[in-house]
Amino acid sequence: MLDFMYNAYTKVYFGKGKEKEVGKIITEYGYKKIMMQYGKESIKKSGLYDVVMNSLKENNIEVVEMGGVEPNPKLDFVRKAAEVAKKEKVEMILAVGGGSVIDSCKATAVAAANNCDVWDVISRKIKPKTSIPVASILTISAAGSEMSNSAVITNMEENMKRGFNGEYNRCKFSICNPELTFTVSKYQTACGVVDIMAHTLERYFTPYPPTELTDRISEGLMKAVVSAGAVAVEKPDDYDARANLMWASSISHNGLTDCGREYYLCVHQIEHGLSGEFDFVPHGAGLAVLLPAWGKYMYKNDPSRFAGFARGVFDVNEEDDMECARLGVEKMAQFFASIGMPKSIREFGIKEDALPRIAYLTTFGKTRTIQSLTDLDYDKILEILKIAY
Amino acid sequence: MLDFMYNAYTKVYFGKGKEKEVGKIITEYGYKKIMMQYGKESIKKSGLYDVVMNSLKENNIEVVEMGGVEPNPKLDFVRKAAEVAKKEKVEMILAVGGGSVIDSCKATAVAAANNCDVWDVISRKIKPKTSIPVASILTISAAGSEMSNSAVITNMEENMKRGFNGEYNRCKFSICNPELTFTVSKYQTACGVVDIMAHTLERYFTPYPPTELTDRISEGLMKAVVSAGAVAVEKPDDYDARANLMWASSISHNGLTDCGREYYLCVHQIEHGLSGEFDFVPHGAGLAVLLPAWGKYMYKNDPSRFAGFARGVFDVNEEDDMECARLGVEKMAQFFASIGMPKSIREFGIKEDALPRIAYLTTFGKTRTIQSLTDLDYDKILEILKIAY
Repeated sequence: MLDFMYNAYTKVYFGKGKEKEVGKIITEYGYKKIMMQYGKESIKKSGLYDVVMNSLKENNIEVVEMGGVEPNPKLDFVRKAAEVAKKEKVEMILAVGGGSVIDSCKATAVAAANNCDVWDVISRKIKPKTSIPVASILTISAAGSEMSNSAVITNMEENMKRGFNGEYNRCKFSICNPELTFTVSKYQTACGVVDIMAHTLERYFTPYPPTELTDRISEGLMKAVVSAGAVAVEKPDDYDARANLMWASSISHNGLTDCGREYYLCVHQIEHGLSGEFDFVPHGAGLAVLLPAWGKYMYKNDPSRFAGFARGVFDVNEEDDMECARLGVEKMAQFFASIGMPKSIREFGIKEDALPRIAYLTTFGKTRTIQSLTDLDYDKILEILKIAY
Repeated sequence: MLDFMYNAYTKVYFGKGKEKEVGKIITEYGYKKIMMQYGKESIKKSGLYDVVMNSLKENNIEVVEMGGVEPNPKLDFVRKAAEVAKKEKVEMILAVGGGSVIDSCKATAVAAANNCDVWDVISRKIKPKTSIPVASILTISAAGSEMSNSAVITNMEENMKRGFNGEYNRCKFSICNPELTFTVSKYQTACGVVDIMAHTLERYFTPYPPTELTDRISEGLMKAVVSAGAVAVEKPDDYDARANLMWASSISHNGLTDCGREYYLCVHQIEHGLSGEFDFVPHGAGLAVLLPAWGKYMYKNDPSRFAGFARGVFDVNEEDDMECARLGVEKMAQFFASIGMPKSIREFGIKEDALPRIAYLTTFGKTRTIQSLTDLDYDKILEILKIAY
């Protein structure tokens, strides 16, 4: 087991109606003036906007609003929001939405606190240690940003989607009410299921020796996600299925499933190449076509590990490791298809001749390889993209 | 899934040699004067005392020492330590040891911060909200106090061992180096294994409906503990086994394995009756004889849950739930025996006529029942004790 630091300090208020307490909770932290970011109109239609604003008002909290965060949150918006945050001297930033809104808030907060351009943070020119406190009211179970130390921002000028990590990035608190996800469409729910699963799966397949406890927890988590995911896409108002997905979203990306190992989220990075170039590709759907392709390319490199995955997550009952590994990848592909995910890059309407460009973007213009069970360079990534096509 | 609040904010520095960084870490928090508690001479013999003192000295941290914490930490010691902590105005309290030392520090900290007698906190006369910050350098994997919100203190005057919980009770940080547990005896290691397993097991068997994600994580955790426990008692310097146990100790009692459910630690409470009356009974050994007895008494009340336990933790391959449940309890008993734990209360040299007194203490003089899968009153607890005898 490798050394690690575990620091998942986000306080999670989980359950029915918890969003009504947001004003009271913020008051406990002593903040009087906040910025609130959200997406398009959906939180207004659902009534969540009013609930949150009422709670803030009742507690005399001044709010600077920044609505309009887009999926795959954009650098331009963050730059604008950071200027407002500085000018208005907000004490914390509240995200009301999913991973995109939370990531936008994290990026805004770090730029405002350090009085810098956030792309300098993302491109590792600046290494910040602090940020304005961020909190969230979660409305989609997927990205895990509500407890994670990471965020992903898209730079439209460079067609580049890129993440940055740091302990300063963790939410102070997150309010997680599974009922708020009842209205998430079947397709978006499925995208979330894939993303949640990917966060643990990509930590599970590491070149380091197995870490028994983390492995068993990871298999259990993925098994629960497969089960709850199948229910949630069929019965959108099944509270328990939604609750299991929501909590899995948080702990799949808060550090728990990588204790004692290193990880690289390599398929995530290929997906950032894909949806960085084709903004209309939802992150989860991109992962759903790339993960099985990566699995098919990779399983022969570590059949016993893939066999453990197959047995622990999909109850594959096959003694031969190589065959069990193959079946595990197949089961994963079948599961993603069963919840309505695309089976190939082709299904997005993307032409095959775009694949080299995706591999080029993924490798930052052939300047890096990506670590996985084996290192992936431009050529290998292109091969995986071809399998996914 | 029931509503919950998750707040496991303890920062964990996990790995080889991390204890050398204690002075640097404390300095990061800004504390200049601390109290340090530890047990008898073992940390001096092992050299850990010198390593810690050197690190504190290098960082110019003033230390008020309180050695001599006993197993099942005593109220008298805590009262004395709290007076010293107040007089010396220490800014934090560092535990160097196992659960007993950490619990002693937690009790000292809350009494000093609130200028009260800690037994008034333990007997719920006072409900504190704050405490002096506590941190730990862990030397035994067992109690989970290094991340938990609870502590247990023994009142010798009343022969009573009793716990108290509160968020103020969590360590700010814990330093967990598995190497420090290489010298823990086979017997004490096994006691720890049982305690770790019990913390998750007692959260797993709840009268509430199953919470899929927490259940799968719990089963995975217990499975890993069974596997690592068997190795650690045979090979005390097996780093990975020790590391799995140490991390399992922390996350078995930090709240992760009860998310979405209520729990009562009922066998723990019977064990507190047992070792409250017979101070020479190690907590883990007491649990090792009581858990299988409780299981034998209880499994028919919820065969499907016990069967899930048997399949998920011990790979019992039996289709009939009732038989599978019975086999699961048997497997648990066999596992505890296989790592050298006693199989009955009799083996402690306790006479059978002491059992009513233990049941009496457990029920606070027949004034309470204990919740389990079914409520346990004095008579039922006595019955379980007889099975354990």
